[in-house]
Amino acid sequence: MRSVGICGIGHTKFGKYPGPFLDMLCEAALGAMDDAGAPGGPQSPIDQILVSTMGAGILNHQSSVASAVADALGLCPAMAETVENGPASGGSALKLGYMAIASGLCDCVLVVGGEQMTRVPGPVATDFVSTMLHPEAEYRPGLTLPAFVGMFSRLLMEKNGITPRDLALIAVKDHANAMLNPLAQLHKPLALSDLMDETETRRRDRVIADPLRLYDVCPMSDGAAAVVLCAMDRAQALGLRGPVRIAGIASATDTHVVANRADPTRLDAVRVSAQRAYKMAGLTPADVDVAELHDAFLILELAESEEAGLFPRGTAHLALRRGETSLGGRLPVNPSGGLKAKGHPLGATGISQVAELVLQLRGQAGARQVPGARTGLAVNFGGFGNNVVATLLTTRGEDA
Amino acid sequence: MRSVGICGIGHTKFGKYPGPFLDMLCEAALGAMDDAGAPGGPQSPIDQILVSTMGAGILNHQSSVASAVADALGLCPAMAETVENGPASGGSALKLGYMAIASGLCDCVLVVGGEQMTRVPGPVATDFVSTMLHPEAEYRPGLTLPAFVGMFSRLLMEKNGITPRDLALIAVKDHANAMLNPLAQLHKPLALSDLMDETETRRRDRVIADPLRLYDVCPMSDGAAAVVLCAMDRAQALGLRGPVRIAGIASATDTHVVANRADPTRLDAVRVSAQRAYKMAGLTPADVDVAELHDAFLILELAESEEAGLFPRGTAHLALRRGETSLGGRLPVNPSGGLKAKGHPLGATGISQVAELVLQLRGQAGARQVPGARTGLAVNFGGFGNNVVATLLTTRGEDA
Repeated sequence: MRSVGICGIGHTKFGKYPGPFLDMLCEAALGAMDDAGAPGGPQSPIDQILVSTMGAGILNHQSSVASAVADALGLCPAMAETVENGPASGGSALKLGYMAIASGLCDCVLVVGGEQMTRVPGPVATDFVSTMLHPEAEYRPGLTLPAFVGMFSRLLMEKNGITPRDLALIAVKDHANAMLNPLAQLHKPLALSDLMDETETRRRDRVIADPLRLYDVCPMSDGAAAVVLCAMDRAQALGLRGPVRIAGIASATDTHVVANRADPTRLDAVRVSAQRAYKMAGLTPADVDVAELHDAFLILELAESEEAGLFPRGTAHLALRRGETSLGGRLPVNPSGGLKAKGHPLGATGISQVAELVLQLRGQAGARQVPGARTGLAVNFGGFGNNVVATLLTTRGEDA
Repeated sequence: MRSVGICGIGHTKFGKYPGPFLDMLCEAALGAMDDAGAPGGPQSPIDQILVSTMGAGILNHQSSVASAVADALGLCPAMAETVENGPASGGSALKLGYMAIASGLCDCVLVVGGEQMTRVPGPVATDFVSTMLHPEAEYRPGLTLPAFVGMFSRLLMEKNGITPRDLALIAVKDHANAMLNPLAQLHKPLALSDLMDETETRRRDRVIADPLRLYDVCPMSDGAAAVVLCAMDRAQALGLRGPVRIAGIASATDTHVVANRADPTRLDAVRVSAQRAYKMAGLTPADVDVAELHDAFLILELAESEEAGLFPRGTAHLALRRGETSLGGRLPVNPSGGLKAKGHPLGATGISQVAELVLQLRGQAGARQVPGARTGLAVNFGGFGNNVVATLLTTRGEDA
């Protein structure tokens, strides 16, 4: 099987995007093509485009977006498809792009994902997000994601002794990291005292879905991110920038109906997808220097880091308290600011996570650089953990 | 690169489906799994699921459908994604499934596609279909697919001397074929005299978008179709039915804005995708024994058959008049009844076309069997020809 790497990354500023959906996707795509040294037009090495979006139909009332991207970028007659897997759409498009190249049918694939969530009223966006739940068992009775994660949080907090202050610590870390990321949505310094009262036992921010409070939840975002993938053995001949190798990429599903899980606090699809990716890469959790985890709700950062083997079960919040996951710590998590502070335009997120890892592994992450980062893990979490994509990038073994 | 084949096919009756969208997808998927000999549950050889649908979001207000399918079929933790490419979504999912196996990352992939179009009022369905047009240049000014194809038909009919009677001949052929297909939507015998007046110069059926009339256009349909793909060298070890080999599969894009094409009567994406598929297969148009073409509008059957090299340009209607494309003719086209009479649930169509070819190549097509069929071509047409998938199946070279 051919080895596949990332030659270029592109990223819009997350937040509000004023233009059409197509323009936003193209802005990120052109950034990635420029970064990779891949021209558009008849000379382009790109032979396949994959667009990831969850809401093109529901929010933008558009289909066939991949064809529009191919045309707008002058890449016809390149092949083009749209990929959807809820908030893990970006990771899924990456995975299918990897397969396209690994199969030998393609040499160079543009993967671009985006979402435009801020134009609709909040309740419409919340309803849209809820469509990822099971249509009969969960959506129809009226469950929303915050309500769901509220219940999950209560269970996991009681089980592991996670406190509201622990969640606030993640928010403070993510906001601090986002201050160092010019493309992050929230550039708002945040101190622990902004979120906790004087006794450091009670949160000051308002309740969203008990025990979740405002700063435990990511914002609604517009944004797009893109990467150019290439066969490692073809990048030089195609005139592309030296790629960062994708060592492992895999996904896994879990029961769509969360109530059917034996233990609702376990996220088996994170565990299985990460195990598959480690196995494919020949790496272990101990090799990971930096991680981008899917903290659409902050509690997920803790749960995912344990399922992915980065910390023993029930201990991630202790590592957090010791500062191990902060920049400068042993294993920085979400140096980009995470979904919480960088923003979470659903279809873009999986690609944005991997774009951050590329910067880190290139040593180009500026003020948020994790020194000496050689291996990065991204976890892109779909549904309520029903479909998760894990990706490992590494520069190990490249010296030989 | 590993060779990939189809071990099983499944197909709902096209027409109106009374149950939930998920049930319809699962009915087709279970049919394909049963036909392939692939169990569900922990013993299943299926390691990837691809669901094709254009309207899950717009029509069904659902996302993450692939995860729901994985769960409903007991296939977790198999990987799962949804693929969208307008009316060519099915062909695109097949292509990505092929890549998944060819890459070596998967051995066995379930591809299932469907659409539920009859529950919404006609104008809503027509609007939904129009979302595949360019969002600013075509959709916003109010173009619909029938209006578009009316203009295309006028140009091509004048250029090549195609008459309204020629189009009626296709409808008569397709309806006759559909009478032999128990899963077709329209079981309605149709004589040329039903559509033409006594002079055989004027059509009797009502105008949809001049010069298109009612019988030139496919119906609105519900339906789902599925196939189980497997690596040719793994099927026996996995206990699956002997596969029909996919010799070639490729797609191509053309300008999304049709007005930007040098000649609006040319369908370059059909030509390029077919050429790519022939090249991959080491076959030529002369090898094709049976074809399933995308006749959502009947004129497309003629245009596609020429672009795919089955007839010299400007002559397909002459072959039609001679009966060459009828059952018993030299090169039967749309023995299934085609989109016109079998029905056209958008996300299912590309898979349904290939399922028909599997039946033909197995010699299991019953009363509509093309005798001795060894090689079949499917053309799945997305947008207005902006994104086309061509697939070649063959049993040639299997005797050795």
